[in-house]
Order: sequence, then C-alpha cells, then structure tokens
Amino acid sequence: MNAPGALIFSAFPLLAVELDANHAPLVLAGVLLSLVVIYFASKVGGELSGMLDFPPVLGELIAGVAIGASALHLLVFPENGAIAADSVIMTVLQWIEPLTPAAAASIFQSEGEVISVLAEIGVIILLFEIGLESDVKELQKVGYQATIVACVGVAVPFAAGTAGLMYLFNVPAIPAIFAGAALTATSIGITSKVLSEIGQLKSKEGQIIVGAAVIDDILGIIVLAVVASLAKTGEIDILNVVYLIVSATAFLVGSILLGNVFNKSFIAVSNLLKTRGNLIIPAFIFAFFMAFIGNAIHLEAILGAFAAGLVLEETDERKELDEQVKPIADMLVPIFFISVGAKVDLGVLNPFLPENRVGLTIATFLILVAIVGKVVTGWAVFGQPGINRWAIGIGMIPRGEVGLVFAAIGAASGALDKSLQAAIIIMVILTTFLAPPFLRIAFGSAQASPEQAPDVVP
Amino acid sequence: MNAPGALIFSAFPLLAVELDANHAPLVLAGVLLSLVVIYFASKVGGELSGMLDFPPVLGELIAGVAIGASALHLLVFPENGAIAADSVIMTVLQWIEPLTPAAAASIFQSEGEVISVLAEIGVIILLFEIGLESDVKELQKVGYQATIVACVGVAVPFAAGTAGLMYLFNVPAIPAIFAGAALTATSIGITSKVLSEIGQLKSKEGQIIVGAAVIDDILGIIVLAVVASLAKTGEIDILNVVYLIVSATAFLVGSILLGNVFNKSFIAVSNLLKTRGNLIIPAFIFAFFMAFIGNAIHLEAILGAFAAGLVLEETDERKELDEQVKPIADMLVPIFFISVGAKVDLGVLNPFLPENRVGLTIATFLILVAIVGKVVTGWAVFGQPGINRWAIGIGMIPRGEVGLVFAAIGAASGALDKSLQAAIIIMVILTTFLAPPFLRIAFGSAQASPEQAPDVVP
Repeated sequence: MNAPGALIFSAFPLLAVELDANHAPLVLAGVLLSLVVIYFASKVGGELSGMLDFPPVLGELIAGVAIGASALHLLVFPENGAIAADSVIMTVLQWIEPLTPAAAASIFQSEGEVISVLAEIGVIILLFEIGLESDVKELQKVGYQATIVACVGVAVPFAAGTAGLMYLFNVPAIPAIFAGAALTATSIGITSKVLSEIGQLKSKEGQIIVGAAVIDDILGIIVLAVVASLAKTGEIDILNVVYLIVSATAFLVGSILLGNVFNKSFIAVSNLLKTRGNLIIPAFIFAFFMAFIGNAIHLEAILGAFAAGLVLEETDERKELDEQVKPIADMLVPIFFISVGAKVDLGVLNPFLPENRVGLTIATFLILVAIVGKVVTGWAVFGQPGINRWAIGIGMIPRGEVGLVFAAIGAASGALDKSLQAAIIIMVILTTFLAPPFLRIAFGSAQASPEQAPDVVP
Repeated sequence: MNAPGALIFSAFPLLAVELDANHAPLVLAGVLLSLVVIYFASKVGGELSGMLDFPPVLGELIAGVAIGASALHLLVFPENGAIAADSVIMTVLQWIEPLTPAAAASIFQSEGEVISVLAEIGVIILLFEIGLESDVKELQKVGYQATIVACVGVAVPFAAGTAGLMYLFNVPAIPAIFAGAALTATSIGITSKVLSEIGQLKSKEGQIIVGAAVIDDILGIIVLAVVASLAKTGEIDILNVVYLIVSATAFLVGSILLGNVFNKSFIAVSNLLKTRGNLIIPAFIFAFFMAFIGNAIHLEAILGAFAAGLVLEETDERKELDEQVKPIADMLVPIFFISVGAKVDLGVLNPFLPENRVGLTIATFLILVAIVGKVVTGWAVFGQPGINRWAIGIGMIPRGEVGLVFAAIGAASGALDKSLQAAIIIMVILTTFLAPPFLRIAFGSAQASPEQAPDVVP
C-alpha cells in the first residue's frame, strides 16, 4: 500500500533523520505553540460550558471543533490529509524562520505526531484515572437491576445502529460495527452531576443509573477493544470475535483478580522508595506497561490503563495517588478532547451541499438510535413497581468521554470515514446537550437541595 | 545540506504521511515501552544513588548511560545515528508485529522524536519549577559576596575552558565556547543538601554558597542562551554577542519586572475559573508561551520557562501551584535526565582505543578546569577575615542539572561532537561525586545536627 514511500525511506534513511534533527528546535516551537492554543481553547470552552451548566468536556470538545479542521485551522493534523500550508501554527513558524516547503512539511508532520501521541497518553491517563475512581467493591453491590439496564443499553443501540447502517444505508460491516459500538457508552460524569443537582443521586433511579453507567463504561471498553481489533484485521469471523471478547474480558477480570495480590506488593515497593515520585512513577510504570500489553495483544492501550486503575483503586494509597494523577490529567487530558474535536471536519455535514445528504441522513439516524436505544433501558427494570422508567432511560442518554474515545480510535484506525466520524461527534454533543434538561423534566423539574456529587471526570 | 531529502519529501509528502499514520499504534507502543524503561531505570538509579548519599539525579544520569547508546541499547535515538536494528525496543515491537525495514525505520524515527520532545518539555518544566522555587526577594538580600563568588565562578571556568580548548587542543571556536559555557553552572540542589546534612546551611559560608549557586543558575541560563544562539548561526561577531547578552538579560529582567504587574491579574483570572485545572492550565499557558517566545527570539525555550517560574513565584498561589507542578515534574523530568545519559556514547572515551587519546586528554583537562575554576572562587570573597575559603570554593564544584542541560542542548544543536559531549557528562558526574566528601573535609568533617534542607530539585 505504501511501497513507494517505504522504498524512499529505506533508500535514504539518514537523510530523513538529518532533516528532522536539523529542525528540532522548530518542532519544539510548534509543539509549544500548539499546547498554548489547546490549553487556551480548553479553558475558554470548558468555562463557558460550565457557566451554562453543561459539563466542561462538552465545551472543550466544541472548542476543539472551533480551532480545528472545521473552522479556524489553528490545530490541524497531517494524518487527516492537512498539509503544512493549512496550519496557522506553521504559518507563524514561517514568520519566525523562513522554511523550504519540504522542511515545513517535515516539521508539520513531526509536530502533528507529537501532539497525537500526547493526546493518546492523555486518554491513557484519563482511563487510568476513571479506573482509579471506580469502586469495584461498590460495583459488586449495585445488583442485577443496574447490570440489566447496562446490558440492554449496550446491546440495543449497538444492534440497531449496526444493522441500520448496514441494511438501510449499505455501510460496509466494519465501519457499521464501529459506529454502532460508539453508541454504547454512557457518560457517568454528566448524569451524576445532573442527578446530584436535582437531589436524585441517592434515589432508587439515581443508583440504578449510576451503577449502569459504570458497568456500561466497562462493557464499552471491552466492545471498543474487540471492535478496534476487528478493524485492524479487516475480517469478521465468529471465532475471532469470540476470541476477542473472551480475551478482553479475561484481561480485565484477570487483572483485577491478580491485582488483589499485586497491590500489596505495590504499596510495599512504593513505601521503600525514598526519592521524589515514589508513588506516581511506580504507578505509571504499571499503567504504561499494562497499556503496552493491551496494545501488544491487539486490544487497546486504554483497556490496559483502565485495568491498571482498577487494580490500584484497591490500595490504601488510592487517595494520595489520585491527588497526584489529577494535575497530570489536567495537563494531558485536554489535549485529547481538543484533538478529537479538531480532527473532525464538520464541513462534511454542511446541509447546503447536496452531496452531503447521505451523510446527514446517517447522522440523523445515529442520533435517533442513540436516544431511543438508551431510553428503552428504563423498561428493562423488573420487579420495581412505580419506578420512574423515563428517568432511568433518559439518564442513560449522554455519551461523553467514552463516545469520544470511540470516535478517535475509529478515525485513527481508518475504520470511520469523515462523515461517520463527524456524525458520531455530533451525536455525542447532542446527547450530552439534551440529557440534562430532559432529565430534569422526567424527574418533575428541580427538587430538593443539591447533594454532594462524586468525583466527576474531568 | 539536505537537499536530496528535501526533494523526496516534497515529491511524496502524502506517502510519508500515510506510512506514519498507518503505524500509529506501533509508535504509541514504542513510546509506552520506552517510558516504562525510562521510569524503571530512573527509579533504580535514583534510589541507589540516594542510598549511597548521592543526589538522585546522579543515579538517574548514570542509569540513563547504562540503558543508552553506551551499554544496553534499550533507549537509543535516531538523531545520534542509531538505526532501528540498534534499538532493543524496536526488536520487541518486531516480535509483536513483523515490520518491513522501512516501516521499522519510520516507527523508530517517530518514537525517538516523541521521546525527545517529551524530554524537552521535561526540561522546560524543570526550569519552570526551579524558577518557581527561587526566591527573587531573598536573592536581592544575598549581597555582594555571593554575587562576586558567582561571577568569578562563571568567568574563570568559562574563560579557562574555552581558551584552553582553542589554544591547547585546537578545538574550533563554537564547540570550545559551548564546552567552556558548560563548566559555568553550579548545582544548588547537591550543595545545599550536603550543607544541611553537616549543619552548615545557615553558616556564613553556607549562605554565600547557596546565594552564589542561585545567581550562578541565572547567569548560566543567560550564558547558555547566548552560546546556543551563536551555535545556531555559526558566527561569532562582537556586535551579535553583545546583542544576545543584552537581549537575554533584558528578557529575564523584563519578565520579572512586568511580572510584578502581571501576577496579580494571573491570580484574578485563576480565581475566576471554576473548572478543573484552573491554576495549572493558566500557568502552563504562560510558561509554554514564554518558552515559545524564548525559542522564537533565537534564545532558548528554557530561558522563557525559567522567567515564567520567577514571575509566578511572586504570587500568593505559588505554594499550591508548586504542589501541582511537582507530580508533573516527577513524570516528565526523569525523561530528560535519562535521555541525556542515554544519548551519550561513553565508548568514545574508552581508554583502551588509541584513537580516543585526544578525547581523553580533553576530558581530563575539562574536569581539572571545572574543579580549579570553582575552587578559586573562595578567594574572591573580601572583607571577611577567617572565612573558610576552601569550603566556599569546594561548595561551588558540583554541576548537576544545568550542566546536563548544556550538554543536551549542545549535542542537539550539533555544536558538540560525541567526545566533547561525553567529556561534559563525565565532568558533571565526577564533580557531583567529588564535592560531597570534599565539602565534609573542608568543613572539618560532620558536625552538629542536620538542619531542614530547602526544596531540592529534583
């Protein structure tokens, strides 16, 4: 597929190296400027979103769209087909030091790669933090109701989304499965914040929603690992799917079981260390190693990081570790959310262009499935007469972080084309916008005094 | 210089892009595995060093040498002429997924670039932290004695080192100036730790040493910015040197003066923000922007980061900010120290190879100048009869962090060849090893009870 490129690299490997080494200070300058832009956008977006009572992550995502390929071109990536001349940051670098087109292309390429890897490390840290803040013991108590709601909330949107895309719109199997999978996740952060605001976090409905959202995250990460692995091989055969589901589940459950043994020695080692970073560095050695293993066995790096977080969640040092991970997450996670937004080109869904009609219809279909597929989960609850089924269903609607992780990994693997990717981003934005007001209505508008929300990410 | 490479890139930019995008998961796998190796080495080295009562940074540096180009080849970099087959990590990736030589070269290149930029962000954070922990007001009180000791301690090793290299060894001007400049820095961390252990931190000698070491850091960073800029243009003309010294000094002093106005609005903005990272993200926007400016005006990124730290040091939130920067520094700074060690090939100083004799003689010369040039500073103190001049001189000997920053930037700019680079690393290691025992002897061996050491970096 890239044989000519490969030949060129093997013929002149040293030239390519020299070219890059020579421009190393400008790559750094480009990365620094990109980070300034990313952080500025993330704060403006996050704060505006917070003021309007929406979750900050939504504002960060929209800020990413605003500075990215859809609008301002402050942050564009070569992997999405942009060239150096498209990038405002490269234009600034050209003012500082005039560059040949080839040098500019090489710097743009390196800078984009560095920001992409920083974003990937950001999502690894995010999933590590989510794992660290999940309470495995609490989860075991949530009971059947939440588990059933979670399973229905994964199965219905996945099946309806995938089948609809394949049979109504003739989308090939792999992208259809990927887009269907992106409909499965539920954002615990958004829902639990709204529930606490209207004083329903400790209600029966609230407990079921929060429990189901946590289980949903775990199921979603397993589904993602399986689907991403299918996308890599490009083949769907039942044996492979079964193998992947079993291995992803075994990896996660096995890590947690082994972790109960391991976390005592982790603390013992950390207590022995006397130099700075005695807690965070061993934790990162573990998390990055697990992420590497997740990647190496053809699942996903984030699955490993999430498992590592679940294991360390069980230790006595969890709280202190969480304190130290927070600033690191604050630094790296926005790079991920902003990049996801920036990589999407919403122009592909511009309704004024006739060639976009199919893409728009698909986007509308995905959004409908995303909403209906979660609302039905309310009727999966059994043996609870008088329970507010609408509230449970609506509480499961917002997609948030994990939906974005799907869109990012789908785009990076090449499984999702531009319009499917844009459709998923719009789906995440809309479900997140719609859920809070609807949830208030379903619970009969704002009541009671706000309770303490659990730690919300991010 | 790289015209053929440039032509290739401009002829097939998209192919090069495709090649990289395709292997993105393996680049991430390589980066994760490199980080695991780096963190593991940094903890083993740092802890062993701490146990033997040496500063952890020394152990990290030696661990870097052990896993790098000199020995284990776990961490090697394409910019130093290594190819994918030299890298143990690339060999591991090949087990996971067989790669064509071209794909392996491309992944190795990207992975090395990402780790290098992470190391550069690490040193930016390190200098930001050093700035944040320097007390500008305290510095103004240290007085003439410390300033004179610092100036002599910069001027003598710089002049003797540069002149000696040029006239005794016929080294060209630019590398000679760079190596001379690398002799100027004094490590405050190492010295103040030893002083506090022997109960001499608050003595007259201790105060002069610590004050001079802080001023030395500032002078050293200005010298580095000037020298690195000279190395970029390759020309030494007096007007340019004067311009660089003035602009570097003006940049630093100007930032501090402006900062007294700016830091109030910084705190006001930070207090307005309600979302996570309300303190650290504005601080990083400022630090990275200053680093970018430092880079853009052809000085150094670290000069900007250091100035940003000095400015924010004056705010009321300094302590909280410092708390949050610490885990981030713990995560990123070891990447810098380990990389510096790993990039050095000590093999070029192997005494059993006759062609290394010149390099060895130069290394010996640099080490002698490094020691003698600092010991003489004791005799720069005036009007203090009975002061322990030997103790002051010896206290100024260890080089530590800033010396390593010189070696790294000199190597990256191409100004330092492999044997000069190795000589500087050996100089840093030896001066750091020798100073603590000699300082104890100069003060008449261990006395009194240990005092509280100031925050030691790292």
